[in-house]
Amino acid sequence: MSQAAVTFIGLGRMGAPMARNLLAAGFELTIHNRSPKAAEPLVSAGARLAPSPAQSVTPGGIVVSMLAHDAALEAVTLGEQGFAAALGSGGLHISMSTVAPEISRRLAQEHERHGSQFVAAPVFGRPDAAAARKLRICQSGAPDAKLRARPIFDALGQGVFDFGTDPGAANVAKLCGNFLIFAAVEALAETFTLAEKSGLDRSALAAFFGQTIFACPVYQDYGRIVAERAFEPPGFTLELGLKDMRLVRDVAETAGVPMPIGDLLRARLLSGIAQGRGQLDFTAIELACAGDAGLAAPR
Amino acid sequence: MSQAAVTFIGLGRMGAPMARNLLAAGFELTIHNRSPKAAEPLVSAGARLAPSPAQSVTPGGIVVSMLAHDAALEAVTLGEQGFAAALGSGGLHISMSTVAPEISRRLAQEHERHGSQFVAAPVFGRPDAAAARKLRICQSGAPDAKLRARPIFDALGQGVFDFGTDPGAANVAKLCGNFLIFAAVEALAETFTLAEKSGLDRSALAAFFGQTIFACPVYQDYGRIVAERAFEPPGFTLELGLKDMRLVRDVAETAGVPMPIGDLLRARLLSGIAQGRGQLDFTAIELACAGDAGLAAPR
Amino acid sequence: MSQAAVTFIGLGRMGAPMARNLLAAGFELTIHNRSPKAAEPLVSAGARLAPSPAQSVTPGGIVVSMLAHDAALEAVTLGEQGFAAALGSGGLHISMSTVAPEISRRLAQEHERHGSQFVAAPVFGRPDAAAARKLRICQSGAPDAKLRARPIFDALGQGVFDFGTDPGAANVAKLCGNFLIFAAVEALAETFTLAEKSGLDRSALAAFFGQTIFACPVYQDYGRIVAERAFEPPGFTLELGLKDMRLVRDVAETAGVPMPIGDLLRARLLSGIAQGRGQLDFTAIELACAGDAGLAAPR
Amino acid sequence: MSQAAVTFIGLGRMGAPMARNLLAAGFELTIHNRSPKAAEPLVSAGARLAPSPAQSVTPGGIVVSMLAHDAALEAVTLGEQGFAAALGSGGLHISMSTVAPEISRRLAQEHERHGSQFVAAPVFGRPDAAAARKLRICQSGAPDAKLRARPIFDALGQGVFDFGTDPGAANVAKLCGNFLIFAAVEALAETFTLAEKSGLDRSALAAFFGQTIFACPVYQDYGRIVAERAFEPPGFTLELGLKDMRLVRDVAETAGVPMPIGDLLRARLLSGIAQGRGQLDFTAIELACAGDAGLAAPR
Repeated sequence: MSQAAVTFIGLGRMGAPMARNLLAAGFELTIHNRSPKAAEPLVSAGARLAPSPAQSVTPGGIVVSMLAHDAALEAVTLGEQGFAAALGSGGLHISMSTVAPEISRRLAQEHERHGSQFVAAPVFGRPDAAAARKLRICQSGAPDAKLRARPIFDALGQGVFDFGTDPGAANVAKLCGNFLIFAAVEALAETFTLAEKSGLDRSALAAFFGQTIFACPVYQDYGRIVAERAFEPPGFTLELGLKDMRLVRDVAETAGVPMPIGDLLRARLLSGIAQGRGQLDFTAIELACAGDAGLAAPR
Repeated sequence: MSQAAVTFIGLGRMGAPMARNLLAAGFELTIHNRSPKAAEPLVSAGARLAPSPAQSVTPGGIVVSMLAHDAALEAVTLGEQGFAAALGSGGLHISMSTVAPEISRRLAQEHERHGSQFVAAPVFGRPDAAAARKLRICQSGAPDAKLRARPIFDALGQGVFDFGTDPGAANVAKLCGNFLIFAAVEALAETFTLAEKSGLDRSALAAFFGQTIFACPVYQDYGRIVAERAFEPPGFTLELGLKDMRLVRDVAETAGVPMPIGDLLRARLLSGIAQGRGQLDFTAIELACAGDAGLAAPR
Repeated sequence: MSQAAVTFIGLGRMGAPMARNLLAAGFELTIHNRSPKAAEPLVSAGARLAPSPAQSVTPGGIVVSMLAHDAALEAVTLGEQGFAAALGSGGLHISMSTVAPEISRRLAQEHERHGSQFVAAPVFGRPDAAAARKLRICQSGAPDAKLRARPIFDALGQGVFDFGTDPGAANVAKLCGNFLIFAAVEALAETFTLAEKSGLDRSALAAFFGQTIFACPVYQDYGRIVAERAFEPPGFTLELGLKDMRLVRDVAETAGVPMPIGDLLRARLLSGIAQGRGQLDFTAIELACAGDAGLAAPR
Repeated sequence: MSQAAVTFIGLGRMGAPMARNLLAAGFELTIHNRSPKAAEPLVSAGARLAPSPAQSVTPGGIVVSMLAHDAALEAVTLGEQGFAAALGSGGLHISMSTVAPEISRRLAQEHERHGSQFVAAPVFGRPDAAAARKLRICQSGAPDAKLRARPIFDALGQGVFDFGTDPGAANVAKLCGNFLIFAAVEALAETFTLAEKSGLDRSALAAFFGQTIFACPVYQDYGRIVAERAFEPPGFTLELGLKDMRLVRDVAETAGVPMPIGDLLRARLLSGIAQGRGQLDFTAIELACAGDAGLAAPR
């Protein structure tokens, strides 16, 4: 196992296990995180901690970023301490965050000015999937850049899915997936509310669908969560959910696409936050369905 | 293979292969269909053709019905030539149609007056699944009646899922499933419209989801159909789709459950019919999404 | 004041003051009501009380009906004790209830078989407007029948608006008006919720609109009611509101017209009833808006 | 007629007649417009033309701005050539544009730093109302600043409506009004589509409502426009409509208020633009209603 050097920026709930997998795969790892505390276990495991994004990269090297939102990604790349200039000629930035396609397109242009390349590579999978190297990775960007990124992806996930050369395309695919998941949750919420008020057992119905026509992770996992109203602890908070669905809306507005289920989802999320449920799991949009039907919500 | 005698009423696209499977499983089969022509192949294969519902049943025997809508089910059971009285004491009516839960509850009461029993047993699966004995069967009704129906179910499907003793409960489960399928189709339609107008390949995206987080029949099959706009020939027409979503609405109104995605689906279906697409597959609700986004529809 | 004889059936909150106005205008009045108690004041004022619809009419005479719903209208006209046959040749039925256009079309045909005519004449105005002869009357039917009805309309309202010869057209116009009113209430509810959460005074905003661009009765009256949440006592209950919006939906489905605001209104009404607000004024759909925004509802 | 000196910035379709009315009322007028051509008629009528916002104001004087959007307002006030510093101590900025409340709040703070005051004063009324001094003016800001603005308002409109001291409140009121207008147009569009497909005359129905329960400018004017599909020439384009409804949405998101009719309106507007109708009047959202119902649109 003698792999190239890699920089990893962003050690949150997703980034930390991903960085650990790169270490385990033999990459020589430099890390950076806004709060250095999160870096400690990785430093103990052999990673080098850099005090700023700019100081974390090697000229012409590879940087992987996994950040919470567009602003953080922009700051570490193009901000005062950003790494774009330091990465310089021959460098590669692999951006794995769930962000707007517009920022990927813009970063790709900025990197090009410095002679480096950009690959958007957002992922599907929760922190446990990240730890287990089970992520699904959507990629887009220049073919040679994607080829160069491949060993990194192999160390992080169970599959790479290509969406072409537009740097923003993989971000669109990721947002489409999140939209589909949220839409399925709303549909399940309406379904179980109808079932409950018609005298059926919610969990039996969820189990039936998860074993038959909807025998896939989204319906199995969220079907159970929604049926049982297991909204705590949150896997992904309602507030973060609204952030994602706003990204979907922005892409849709730019593209000129009305999305009525998208509008409904944002209304549910906005309402959930207004009612003090912002820190519950996003699946707690079910409580709005239940409330509209006069079911006494469990909280 | 020496099975009891069974009557099968309703030899449509679903009923015909189901009746054939009962014959193949060794049941002594009497059949009835409004149009006797559809019965010919089964008669050739050994079934007895009865000229009316009332003449098709044996007192105390078993009747399976598979009809297009509530009115047909009511007519064959309680109409002038209906079999309810003839079935009489000790009989069992297994109703496998997609109908309103209300009619199941009412039929159960009517049969009880004659001393016979009723099991609602709607199915998931298209005609090819019916032919291959791959149906999923939802059942509800009295425990002993369901036990008696079991050999029939074993000859028709790959699994039986129980929803309790309320005769209408299995119908609610079936309608919930159809609602979830339609909701998934609408979500896919919005997704692929967004993807297309953002420059992504619809089919690649469908394939990605079908292989990963939505690796289940509904998203694989309908994902492909919607991505490719393969709306002909119809598997299930838009007009029939509206019929089903109206049943969902009626159950929801009775139960006092607002279902915003349900409202959206009916609007899409109604619009599709108003625009002359009633005989396309119900997935052609995608054309409304595409049209709203200014995509030139392929038809 | 020497007017022809007239029969009036249906002495509810609207019918009673209307019948009184006919008496006051000099018509020789025969009345019928399911519950005879409501007829007492009118009998004291000179009306003759008939024990059944059939016994209330004069062959070839004029009957005005003002009933709560389609079923009641059908019963008094075509039921066992219905007046259709007794009215016979040369008669005129003026139906002023808010009902489906379909029943008007059917009644027109039934009356024609007996040689009598039918005019649909639903009204706008609450009971106080009925008492003050301020109703607005929408009419449709055969020209000579409408001419014959005119003196009656003059005694009941402040204006007659013609919608042609289709007996159902005036009912469609009435339902359109009710839909517009409900839609305005929902828009006002969303507006005042937004205003309140943005720190504005709801009532000041309502007053502003009522004095300027929306200086008309609907926005003035309902603007104040919604701004102040004056949902009791009800002028028109939420439950009756759902009945009307279902009539709108049925006409829309028959005509093949998706109405997204109509769907939203029904969802609000259904939810209001599910939450125990069925006996509040229909404007209490505002409570759903407020609740979705996390405003503590006043009840 | 001896009035104080006033600066007017923004001579578009609304600003030009407003500036002319200030001149006519005797104000000593300095004007500025990005494109100086629009200023010519006013210069001929006695106004002084300034080459930049900064050069258009008198220290401690009064500036009225009427601009197309937030960015233009921000540029003339705080941009490189902006007037904020030059206005200085004792100055008053009256902002009459339809903009976000947030920018009013921010400008008020910026002006305060320079010792000047800010009043938000958006208006209701189209260009002909502006020319006829018939505008309705919503104001908010500090009491003494509003008092000082009053003679200007008297020269421009037929009424001033106060919404308190929050500088953004009048903007919220203006956006609420525009939302109500758009909502009414959508409701009218659904209504006339239903009426037309039910065989009624759209214009007769519009006239009826405009004379009775909706006897107010919005329903009279837009009722006729929607009934007749008189979408050209535009009074206010669909594209500008989307801009306004986005402002509504942003205020609603900040305030935490789901607005389902607001979502519907944005979907209609977005779809209209996607279908090439961006330069039609915003009321052309009716074409989406008609299209959904299968009516052949007139264009």
